[in-house]
Amino acid sequence: MDGVLADIYAQYLKFEAAESGMKRSLESLRGRSESEVFINIRKYLFSKGFFRDTPVIQGSYNGIKKLNSQYELFVVSSATEFPQSLSEKMEWLEEHFPFLTWQQMVFCGSKSVIQGDIMIDDHFKNLDNFKGKTILFTQPHNYGLPDKKHTRVNSWEEILALLL
Amino acid sequence: MDGVLADIYAQYLKFEAAESGMKRSLESLRGRSESEVFINIRKYLFSKGFFRDTPVIQGSYNGIKKLNSQYELFVVSSATEFPQSLSEKMEWLEEHFPFLTWQQMVFCGSKSVIQGDIMIDDHFKNLDNFKGKTILFTQPHNYGLPDKKHTRVNSWEEILALLL
Repeated sequence: MDGVLADIYAQYLKFEAAESGMKRSLESLRGRSESEVFINIRKYLFSKGFFRDTPVIQGSYNGIKKLNSQYELFVVSSATEFPQSLSEKMEWLEEHFPFLTWQQMVFCGSKSVIQGDIMIDDHFKNLDNFKGKTILFTQPHNYGLPDKKHTRVNSWEEILALLL
Repeated sequence: MDGVLADIYAQYLKFEAAESGMKRSLESLRGRSESEVFINIRKYLFSKGFFRDTPVIQGSYNGIKKLNSQYELFVVSSATEFPQSLSEKMEWLEEHFPFLTWQQMVFCGSKSVIQGDIMIDDHFKNLDNFKGKTILFTQPHNYGLPDKKHTRVNSWEEILALLL
């Protein structure tokens, strides 16, 4: 969800700007982890509203809508680390992807319990041990790093080109 | 979680008694689904506090504590159908099973995305398509029904006898 559907970097930058007035480009954050780049990241992630107000990643609405018509689709989101995010993430999905049902939502801590044929994610920790096909969605934290055994995509258009 | 860790029948009966004064024994509910037995079940399940105040099933604290020391354990709970249950279930786990971490919790709609070696559950719909070993925890709704390919247990003592 974060980094594939929800534009969490836009939200990090917004919270950072509100706190310190700092303005940084996404390009300047490339190749380093989120917690390395955003010193107060845990404060942001535990803030009420952080997840509820995250913008939608470009192309993801149409992308999910199309995939949902051809695949058995689930949105699996790491959420239990930030308990307040559970209801915020569910409300966010209901607002921005109203065609998805509660049956298609999973909020977890570790994605190691998830099975499926294809996983799309921006984090190696989620993809590396998944048994099916793995698609790495480019985000600043994974930019320029070796793709490993995953198929890298840079946009939702590229996901659809692969899967439809 | 419900029907294995959380004594949801005690909570159904409490809500029913508060509403109608009706008092029924668990034995009188055997072999019929929860929604067949409790006419206003959806009202209860959507009530604030329903999941937060559910009693703990006898033996489950010691059982989970012991399993947790020998297995990689996850608590997987159907929750997204009742959005208010997400935070209530997480708080409930943190209160009653404080040794469990956020990494071990999964709140979903369908358990068909879950993989593992062993699943303990009270519902056939969750166990029937699970690829690992399946343990059916007896509850009134599955009482007396054929066990299918699952191993039936009637208590946490029986679970521990099987798995330790």
